[in-house]
Amino acid sequence: MPIETKSDEITHHISQQFNNDLDELRNQLLAMGGAVEKQVSDAIRALIDADSELGLSVREKDTDINYMEVSIDENVSRVLARRQPAASDLRLVIACTKAATDLERIGDEASKIARFGISLSEQGEAPRGYVEARHIGSHVRKMVQDALNAFARFDADMALAVVQEDKSVDREYKSAMRELVTYMMEDPRSITRVLNIMWVLRSLERIGDHARNIAEYVIYLVKGTDVRHIGIKRMKAEVFEDL
Amino acid sequence: MPIETKSDEITHHISQQFNNDLDELRNQLLAMGGAVEKQVSDAIRALIDADSELGLSVREKDTDINYMEVSIDENVSRVLARRQPAASDLRLVIACTKAATDLERIGDEASKIARFGISLSEQGEAPRGYVEARHIGSHVRKMVQDALNAFARFDADMALAVVQEDKSVDREYKSAMRELVTYMMEDPRSITRVLNIMWVLRSLERIGDHARNIAEYVIYLVKGTDVRHIGIKRMKAEVFEDL
Repeated sequence: MPIETKSDEITHHISQQFNNDLDELRNQLLAMGGAVEKQVSDAIRALIDADSELGLSVREKDTDINYMEVSIDENVSRVLARRQPAASDLRLVIACTKAATDLERIGDEASKIARFGISLSEQGEAPRGYVEARHIGSHVRKMVQDALNAFARFDADMALAVVQEDKSVDREYKSAMRELVTYMMEDPRSITRVLNIMWVLRSLERIGDHARNIAEYVIYLVKGTDVRHIGIKRMKAEVFEDL
Repeated sequence: MPIETKSDEITHHISQQFNNDLDELRNQLLAMGGAVEKQVSDAIRALIDADSELGLSVREKDTDINYMEVSIDENVSRVLARRQPAASDLRLVIACTKAATDLERIGDEASKIARFGISLSEQGEAPRGYVEARHIGSHVRKMVQDALNAFARFDADMALAVVQEDKSVDREYKSAMRELVTYMMEDPRSITRVLNIMWVLRSLERIGDHARNIAEYVIYLVKGTDVRHIGIKRMKAEVFEDL
């Protein structure tokens, strides 16, 4: 066993504090992620069940989500200034601030869905498109969940799967939109209601995009390569390069 | 005149390099800003003039914008790791990475507008909503320009004005959408084309949101306070506190 000097003790102490800071940041991000996940599933439920009370509660809670983002960014600035992280620690800090922005935007979309849920429930009568909203909704909710799990476990493979899922959400979204346009043309009296459902689908599709962004930060975090905009093929090569 | 020692020289040299790094980062962001501004105005022109060639060129150039974001973020990581900036220097670095994300998203929206421009020009016959697209388009283009000028000059007052403009874009957007819905109901055969214009207006409205985000980072950069989500009133108090 090596003899521990005073200086080792200090170094150990500092690096312990540093690790605590990084853990706290990561936990903060995952807590925000959990809250945002709940917002998404509550917003979809408010829409499907025409539950305007739940819709209102989603809209109120969006403020908490916003503060969580600001608080994560404060923490990021503090860690950067005090700890001067490098290499993978620096990547973790950067990934946290980037992912927090995407989580906040997912929260915004959930809040919009809740708003449409409230106004659709006031109009009574479920229009077409609920089935699609439910389906795409559960798909993107799973993407958000998986992106956060990938973040929690530093799992680049799982992150890559999320990126791939986004393609299939985009396909589902486009096919649902085409159906809704046909429906509108057949029954022009339904235009306003169907438009509301279209906005909901658009929000869901954007939630998928944000989940994909978070997954890309996870790959950056784990692999050290920025995989945005490089296409799935090269992304796979990055993720599987060590295998 | 103080005697310059070897150590002063080195400190001076290092701090000069540091300043160069920060200047380079800022210039990179402003160059990306200029390119994105052009994408927005070209996309709107492609739509209004039914110029599908210009539309295609906007879509091609989006790749350059994407690489600019990645390159800024690489530079940000390098500056953070090597220079360990603090206080206002750190805020500048953080503001650059955040603003680059918003610029990239503005580029995405410009690319979407260009796509609708191409498909609308193929359908021939200008549908309703072009006047609104032109009007809101020039409004948000000005917002992007002003946000970037505010960034270049560290001008928090100008940034605050951009934030306030976003409210009026939102009002214009809502009123244009209401008109388009009415038009759709009166002439259901126009549904597909009017929907395309609606997506364009939606993209323009989002460009306004991103310009607002950039303006908020400028206020954070200059004043040191995170003004996201606090409302215009408190934001004004932050900007004018030293007057």
